[in-house]
Amino acid sequence: MNRFEPRDPDYRETLAGYVAAQSYLGLIGASLGAVAPGDVEYRVPFRREIGQQNGFFHGGVIGGIAEAVMGAAASTLAAVGSNVVGAEYKINLLSPALGPLLVARGIVVKPGRTLIVCRADVEVEDEHGARTLCAIAQGAMAVIAPRAG
Amino acid sequence: MNRFEPRDPDYRETLAGYVAAQSYLGLIGASLGAVAPGDVEYRVPFRREIGQQNGFFHGGVIGGIAEAVMGAAASTLAAVGSNVVGAEYKINLLSPALGPLLVARGIVVKPGRTLIVCRADVEVEDEHGARTLCAIAQGAMAVIAPRAG
Amino acid sequence: MNRFEPRDPDYRETLAGYVAAQSYLGLIGASLGAVAPGDVEYRVPFRREIGQQNGFFHGGVIGGIAEAVMGAAASTLAAVGSNVVGAEYKINLLSPALGPLLVARGIVVKPGRTLIVCRADVEVEDEHGARTLCAIAQGAMAVIAPRAG
Amino acid sequence: MNRFEPRDPDYRETLAGYVAAQSYLGLIGASLGAVAPGDVEYRVPFRREIGQQNGFFHGGVIGGIAEAVMGAAASTLAAVGSNVVGAEYKINLLSPALGPLLVARGIVVKPGRTLIVCRADVEVEDEHGARTLCAIAQGAMAVIAPRAG
Repeated sequence: MNRFEPRDPDYRETLAGYVAAQSYLGLIGASLGAVAPGDVEYRVPFRREIGQQNGFFHGGVIGGIAEAVMGAAASTLAAVGSNVVGAEYKINLLSPALGPLLVARGIVVKPGRTLIVCRADVEVEDEHGARTLCAIAQGAMAVIAPRAG
Repeated sequence: MNRFEPRDPDYRETLAGYVAAQSYLGLIGASLGAVAPGDVEYRVPFRREIGQQNGFFHGGVIGGIAEAVMGAAASTLAAVGSNVVGAEYKINLLSPALGPLLVARGIVVKPGRTLIVCRADVEVEDEHGARTLCAIAQGAMAVIAPRAG
Repeated sequence: MNRFEPRDPDYRETLAGYVAAQSYLGLIGASLGAVAPGDVEYRVPFRREIGQQNGFFHGGVIGGIAEAVMGAAASTLAAVGSNVVGAEYKINLLSPALGPLLVARGIVVKPGRTLIVCRADVEVEDEHGARTLCAIAQGAMAVIAPRAG
Repeated sequence: MNRFEPRDPDYRETLAGYVAAQSYLGLIGASLGAVAPGDVEYRVPFRREIGQQNGFFHGGVIGGIAEAVMGAAASTLAAVGSNVVGAEYKINLLSPALGPLLVARGIVVKPGRTLIVCRADVEVEDEHGARTLCAIAQGAMAVIAPRAG
């Protein structure tokens, strides 16, 4: 499945720093799950604050975590010292996201030098551990080169 | 500019209830701005909690508010008693969203019976009130008919 | 891989009729490849007429075949007598599509009753049969119910 | 409306050459309409060959012309000698495109140095000249710098 070599040998530390620097992730309560080069998982437990009018995870949170996990996956393959920012993404919401845990997985499809194209799957897990795919996403992350100097 | 007739004469009250029911909007600190049929504005003041690693508004918040404001615009044109949920959306992030206020405006382009297609513009406002377009979005909101009863 | 049951036992005949009715497919020279429920392949040989300024397959053809193959995949899971039309799609172009054959594969991700969400991969094949992924797509196809009658 | 200065003073000639080099445009019968910096129109008369199963313009043609007209609009603002290629786009199909003429208009929203973000509106014109919006699109075109030499 995983075919990419990280450009940064310390990509796990880099990713941990990247996650820690994004206070939005703390706000929605996201934490890192499994990590491999070009393949990252975020986990978001349900709280009422991130719900919508019917008690499901809000579409804005689902889109936000999909974007964030694609950015994280891209960051594991970016050059040392570069800055990864979302350029664009698209998401289809498939099923009501009802359950105690949201699991988003971002996978790099094409690790370009300036644009890294990714896909993401977002699943909701119920009390018994059964998962339902609730959203799929696709987008491009931009790699901002480190400043010379 | 505005060419749509609301199906629900009390669409402003319906929208206010819709907004109040979405605790996610409270979490990111969004409030309603200008409202017309098929044309709604949300305003989000900056706080560190909704930022990313460089101190800009996080892409997940920008996507989330774009989705939310398109849903809100669609809800002003949906049938009485129906439920509007995001089906899909796409966003391009244009410029770093750096400033004290994010203003998202959602506009209905095609108010279908089961799918309402919208566009959104997201601007960031600086300390002097000058605005920069920082993201554009496009998507379809699904209208779930009220249960027969 | 394939987990869907077709609603239409004669879905292969239905698909063949669907393909034959779309003269656009003839115009670009697309033909059906492998077919399974919710999983369809189109093949498009290169001709100068479907190229762009650098001699690659034109982005409009790549997007068009991606949309068409998602529609075809969706049509294999739609109800008997229904009409499948594209509602929306998004595509990322990954690599120059240079080679004698384009192969597009559409896969159904979520076969809803009124919207069928799909993904597509488009590969270009070189003279030696080696393939390069040149585009990925994602979109929703709308199912128009048969007229009562 | 139009706020962009072309980087290339001969952008009209450059665009005409760009259009002539894309044989795909000839295949679907597209011709240039109105042109301004960052704002280009293509016109496509209906022929059976570019239709789908119900006699409408095929979704693949609508997506293709939307992509092409965004690329053309972007090319009017790109640096002299650069090469504009589609990076990604998204389209919502709003109404059946039934009529003798398709008119696609691409507008640049953000003319970045390496990515130019655009929107497009596609209208169908009936026998009496009345137009219906049948699709809206949004996407990013990539600017490939001229080779040093």
